[in-house]
Amino acid sequence: MNKFSIGVDLGGTNLRIAAVDEQGKLVEKVTLGTKVSLGRDHVIGDMCDAIQRTSEKFRDTPLLGIGIGVPGIIDMQTGLLRESPNLPGWADYPVRAEIERRLKTIVILENDANVAALGEKWLGAAKDFSDMAMLTLGTGVGGGLVLGGEIWRGANGMAGEFGHTTVEPEGQLCGCGNRGCLEQYASATAVVRMAREAIAASGGSALARAANSDSEFSSKSIYNLAIQGDEDARRIFRNVGRYLGIVLSAMINSLNLPIYVIGGGASSAWDAFSPSIFEELRRRSFVYVATAPRDPAGQSPATTRARVTNEGASAHIDAGTGRKTIITRALLGSDAGLYGAARLPMLEQAKR
Amino acid sequence: MNKFSIGVDLGGTNLRIAAVDEQGKLVEKVTLGTKVSLGRDHVIGDMCDAIQRTSEKFRDTPLLGIGIGVPGIIDMQTGLLRESPNLPGWADYPVRAEIERRLKTIVILENDANVAALGEKWLGAAKDFSDMAMLTLGTGVGGGLVLGGEIWRGANGMAGEFGHTTVEPEGQLCGCGNRGCLEQYASATAVVRMAREAIAASGGSALARAANSDSEFSSKSIYNLAIQGDEDARRIFRNVGRYLGIVLSAMINSLNLPIYVIGGGASSAWDAFSPSIFEELRRRSFVYVATAPRDPAGQSPATTRARVTNEGASAHIDAGTGRKTIITRALLGSDAGLYGAARLPMLEQAKR
Repeated sequence: MNKFSIGVDLGGTNLRIAAVDEQGKLVEKVTLGTKVSLGRDHVIGDMCDAIQRTSEKFRDTPLLGIGIGVPGIIDMQTGLLRESPNLPGWADYPVRAEIERRLKTIVILENDANVAALGEKWLGAAKDFSDMAMLTLGTGVGGGLVLGGEIWRGANGMAGEFGHTTVEPEGQLCGCGNRGCLEQYASATAVVRMAREAIAASGGSALARAANSDSEFSSKSIYNLAIQGDEDARRIFRNVGRYLGIVLSAMINSLNLPIYVIGGGASSAWDAFSPSIFEELRRRSFVYVATAPRDPAGQSPATTRARVTNEGASAHIDAGTGRKTIITRALLGSDAGLYGAARLPMLEQAKR
Repeated sequence: MNKFSIGVDLGGTNLRIAAVDEQGKLVEKVTLGTKVSLGRDHVIGDMCDAIQRTSEKFRDTPLLGIGIGVPGIIDMQTGLLRESPNLPGWADYPVRAEIERRLKTIVILENDANVAALGEKWLGAAKDFSDMAMLTLGTGVGGGLVLGGEIWRGANGMAGEFGHTTVEPEGQLCGCGNRGCLEQYASATAVVRMAREAIAASGGSALARAANSDSEFSSKSIYNLAIQGDEDARRIFRNVGRYLGIVLSAMINSLNLPIYVIGGGASSAWDAFSPSIFEELRRRSFVYVATAPRDPAGQSPATTRARVTNEGASAHIDAGTGRKTIITRALLGSDAGLYGAARLPMLEQAKR
């Protein structure tokens, strides 16, 4: 490899570090626990040590810089973490300056959902597109917007928060202070809440049994029930798809992007929620209706995926009267953020 | 003037034509009726004659081209009008090619809400900003998005349709086929519908009297009742503001633009609906809360307006820790579309 950069995914639980070359080849990956309880200096020490060990392995290759994806709001100008619920005690700490001082290289901080979007744009589901948006369904619902090949940060670095779109004006209270945010209906956390509501309301017997026997009653256990045909579980994922469809309709009508990618842990339930997404889109977005891939089978998960990854199918999409609107699953899983973070210094260098 | 271009506002009722120089000075303006019933050839004939008469007055000055704002969906590649409810019989007619053939100059077609946004960005409320969005409250709710100084058209030229964001998942049926679009709660048409609903539900006596005595019972008559203190009328505009606030919150959270402009005929009721907008924003958008101008009085209509037009106030906005999110009224009234249309050939020339 000619040059490489280091991508870091600094989560509340895991700290992951990867060396990635300019062609997008991951040449080294390290996973550590984020020892949040030991304080930010300890975590930054662990991170810098691991970055140093990794980059020393490639000491003859020029390092382009370090990109770090962080959950929370980042002040791009100052490199301060303004707010991060998963990293308590880090608020207003000069993360970027501190790491640059220790490692003497370019450091770029970016919101974790934004770097995941950039990763999928660079090497994943949206790699043939320069404009895309991504929704990340995890504990919350993160979002990232890429326009012209670069993260759209907005005036204050706070763009991409599609998860806090109101979908029920008087709905569930959200951590952000609003009521009825998408996050309250389409995150993994929301799936578990809706399951507990279903149990409370109607007994939802299979759900109730799972909740009692399963010490980690999670969106995954509820998805397992859904694929076994449990109607209560299936209804929950239809609801997830419905609300995702409402927000995707607004995004399509507002931005008219060629591709929207859905990732994050809870996106593994794609089969259970995606039919409802497309149902809502056909009803709620005249832009989608005018630009949907003509083959309705193309909306089933397998072929939608094929459309993006398979050249024949992708050519078919572009053969129409214009570009089509594609809604698809993410392809890079939890590595999207690592790739996206590693991409940041490369884009920065290209501008100089 | 050194060079000029011609802006056309081709509406279902009026056809307006203006010659505008590169500094944004309107040097000539003509208003004709759009004789839709006589057919598209007649309308295009009228338009071309008027454009010719106008440009002949400046025959010694180079004409940069003609920009035309049209209600409806335009195929930017082919210059076809794909769909236009107010111009029946124009669908799939090669408007651009026909006018170029007759006038032998560059012609650019664009959606009317997009050109209004471009006009406000060039010379109006957003003139100090390169990124902005506009909502146009008229018969429907139009929208336009300007990023990096240019209209964001999206993959198919259909971006900016903020008026078709779902605000009530099972709400009023919209002409677009969806239920609960913003357009059904914030357009002039919606104001009248909500007034008739209020009369039907409770008698709303002042509204009922106005509806009976006023042959053109319009959003304007309802606004007049609101400023006279009629509670039924006031409630309707609070509702308008509430739904505008829901959509603006989503726009702010998603795009984090520095300025959002509200225009169109029904925006003259700003005093009646804007307090509810800001109430919703403070509740529903943590991005707005983090970036709102600090002086709460700054949100009153007069000072918000001053902030944009008055240099002292505008300096105050930028003196904080970062850029602020401004929500403000449009400044150019119905001329926004004319200016924006005239701007199109100028931007096009700059790219060559």
